[in-house]
Amino acid sequence: MIKKVLVANRGEIAVRIIRACRELGIETVAVFSQADRDALHVQLADEAYCIGPTASKDSYLNFTNIMSVATLTGCDAIHPGYGFLAENEAFAELCRECNVTFIGPSPEAIAKMGIKDIARETMREAGVPIVPGSRGVIESLDEARAIAEEIGYPVIIKATAGGGGKGIRVARDEGELVKGINITQQEAATAFGNPGVYIEKYIEDFRHVEIQVLADSYGNTIHLGERDCSIQRRLQKLVEEAPSPALDDEMRRKMGEAAVKAAKAVNYTGAGTVEFIYDHRNKQFYFMEMNTRIQVEHPVTELITGVDLVKEQIRIAAGEKLSITQEDVTFNGWAIECRINAENPAKNFMPSPGKIAMYLPPGGPGVRVDSAVYPGYTIPPYYDSMIAKLIVHAPTRAEAIARMRRALSEFIIEGIHTTIPFHIKLMEHENFQSGEFNTKFLELYDIMKAE
Amino acid sequence: MIKKVLVANRGEIAVRIIRACRELGIETVAVFSQADRDALHVQLADEAYCIGPTASKDSYLNFTNIMSVATLTGCDAIHPGYGFLAENEAFAELCRECNVTFIGPSPEAIAKMGIKDIARETMREAGVPIVPGSRGVIESLDEARAIAEEIGYPVIIKATAGGGGKGIRVARDEGELVKGINITQQEAATAFGNPGVYIEKYIEDFRHVEIQVLADSYGNTIHLGERDCSIQRRLQKLVEEAPSPALDDEMRRKMGEAAVKAAKAVNYTGAGTVEFIYDHRNKQFYFMEMNTRIQVEHPVTELITGVDLVKEQIRIAAGEKLSITQEDVTFNGWAIECRINAENPAKNFMPSPGKIAMYLPPGGPGVRVDSAVYPGYTIPPYYDSMIAKLIVHAPTRAEAIARMRRALSEFIIEGIHTTIPFHIKLMEHENFQSGEFNTKFLELYDIMKAE
Repeated sequence: MIKKVLVANRGEIAVRIIRACRELGIETVAVFSQADRDALHVQLADEAYCIGPTASKDSYLNFTNIMSVATLTGCDAIHPGYGFLAENEAFAELCRECNVTFIGPSPEAIAKMGIKDIARETMREAGVPIVPGSRGVIESLDEARAIAEEIGYPVIIKATAGGGGKGIRVARDEGELVKGINITQQEAATAFGNPGVYIEKYIEDFRHVEIQVLADSYGNTIHLGERDCSIQRRLQKLVEEAPSPALDDEMRRKMGEAAVKAAKAVNYTGAGTVEFIYDHRNKQFYFMEMNTRIQVEHPVTELITGVDLVKEQIRIAAGEKLSITQEDVTFNGWAIECRINAENPAKNFMPSPGKIAMYLPPGGPGVRVDSAVYPGYTIPPYYDSMIAKLIVHAPTRAEAIARMRRALSEFIIEGIHTTIPFHIKLMEHENFQSGEFNTKFLELYDIMKAE
Repeated sequence: MIKKVLVANRGEIAVRIIRACRELGIETVAVFSQADRDALHVQLADEAYCIGPTASKDSYLNFTNIMSVATLTGCDAIHPGYGFLAENEAFAELCRECNVTFIGPSPEAIAKMGIKDIARETMREAGVPIVPGSRGVIESLDEARAIAEEIGYPVIIKATAGGGGKGIRVARDEGELVKGINITQQEAATAFGNPGVYIEKYIEDFRHVEIQVLADSYGNTIHLGERDCSIQRRLQKLVEEAPSPALDDEMRRKMGEAAVKAAKAVNYTGAGTVEFIYDHRNKQFYFMEMNTRIQVEHPVTELITGVDLVKEQIRIAAGEKLSITQEDVTFNGWAIECRINAENPAKNFMPSPGKIAMYLPPGGPGVRVDSAVYPGYTIPPYYDSMIAKLIVHAPTRAEAIARMRRALSEFIIEGIHTTIPFHIKLMEHENFQSGEFNTKFLELYDIMKAE
């Protein structure tokens, strides 16, 4: 078994990983930037070391310093969390070279899914449904025009090295297509060091439904059902739930099987998520991308399946076989997660870093809080604004919403603005309560203005 | 359905009830003594009213003031929580007279179970196993001597109006018997206004195992499995778990059926607990008493069954039928609860009221905190010292213990002493981990001295 894990992340996911390790009897080493000396993950880990200045590129993305700490402290594994180094093929490769277990899939699997046009081709070959579009990256504007004509406008231009809602642009006619390709290529070259873009038919009315998979090193791959992440603002998820109000057992099974196929196609190991565009009107789903890491919204799956995904990641990385089969996976009740961000929802979600004067998370039945803040903690302005995840579990969706409303109403965070008022209004909204919505929900309804 | 509930309690159980009501869409009215103006239940309820001075008898036990608030605020129901008025037959009777629903059993059921010698006789008649002993209260010392000779020493002397570990004394010979009866009678007259005592064979090596029952007004009575509460200090429970490490499915079924029989024998309605002395060496169980209210340790049952017991209490009181049958009750995983008291375990559990300078409850997967404190809150010295319940849920007992150790290690309460260090040592103790112990565990092992 793994004995000591370096947690190459910060915030709530670093705390989450430390918790899993502690319960498994594994020692933990935290790393932190100069801005994160007072962070909770630093206090909770068995050891903690500064790995560089505030900027992520100098600290949380600093291969050399992180690997030095791992080596010097005798860590036999590194957990990357999400973001930062989580889907960095080169870092996974470095771990392999240094003989430190990377708690995640192989560099090859990361690469195959990380380059989106390659992933599309791999899925096509594996028989996983993909949205009609280009084969590989666009070589010329003429090619793009021809494909767009063939599949019909609107189309979506995607950076092949993008993901997570970044490097994406919609084109509704030829003019927008040409302009969009040029801009996206430039942006992608700057942001990802890879200017390649591809195009797909743009499906406007869809739900974001994703399947959690687990795969061990012995060829066993299972899925743990879906999460519905259709409530998004500017392609960033705000609320996730499991199961999806839009899926029935038959669709769940089909989508789950497609996700397993996708994972097997890249010899995937560990925990991963296959994201689908779900055309709920026509009951068709298409591969969107695979996230080759633990996801922010993993707890909703944990609550309805009873499976601890971070522990499973660690066990798989340690060479253990999956302890459960597909038949063992059962779904119990309904779970919803609200991302609590240090942002002011009344002012266009403007970031609101600063000192938390008072902090009291909700408790009681069916409430889980994954957070890395505490009373008196100062949220630095340099990193992601998510400061807590509030997750509830109840027998039915209606009861889960009622529980979430109750929990949000008692969540006290003073000194900064948070998205709690937004979530309260969202949970009260009849179109959220009905379960019938798509990814444009927040474009359609101005939640903060609603009475 | 019930529209507005007066919560006739304080502390974590008042918060628990407010949470259940809020999720059910029921308005809440809190009541508080002059010492509890800043209490969390006061802040969380929709309305809150002072009902008297600090002393419980003048506030939380003040029938008139509580009923006045209920009437004036238009409450159609009162939830008594545990302690205070929860098992007060006269208060339940007053509610009936005032046409306010008492969320609990009938005054008759409370009375039949509240007077312990009557409860014993009722159980005998219903065929529920009872410990050999006197029939009814002891009329004379001669009678007591004769019974003790017959059943054999040691015997236990119990005040018929006692309960919850109060009004109890062991006698190992005739001298102790005579002395014990005299003292217990005097104490009982003072404490409970009823000097009656009865005697039973004293079973020294037993586990405290209790069965949760639910009964509606239509004759449907089910059980929700057992809780093991053998970890006690001076007859006060400190740690509870579900299921019990000492029971197999067969014994669980038998004990569950006996509990249902016990409840039916008094036409019980609502949530109740039948406590048993479980002679684990001989696999025999005996009725101890029935608590005709929600119990402190109810969350462990909620976690393994998925049933919200406080909501069920409210639904039953509102005249609803049980939504589940005995066959629907399933048990999932293992749950453990640690009572976090404001006491110094290193100084003989001396009470430690005062101001909480810093407070950060644990979070993450499988952790539930039921508490009524917050950063900056001053714990008054006048009431029960329990300030929080930390409850964990995991697939197995070993994993639940690991999770509890993790959660305890990250629970921050500064400014006062708490029982957290005690629980950490207990969870580390190999005899706790083995699951093989009886109610004398804490007499046998000096946990705070153990290395």
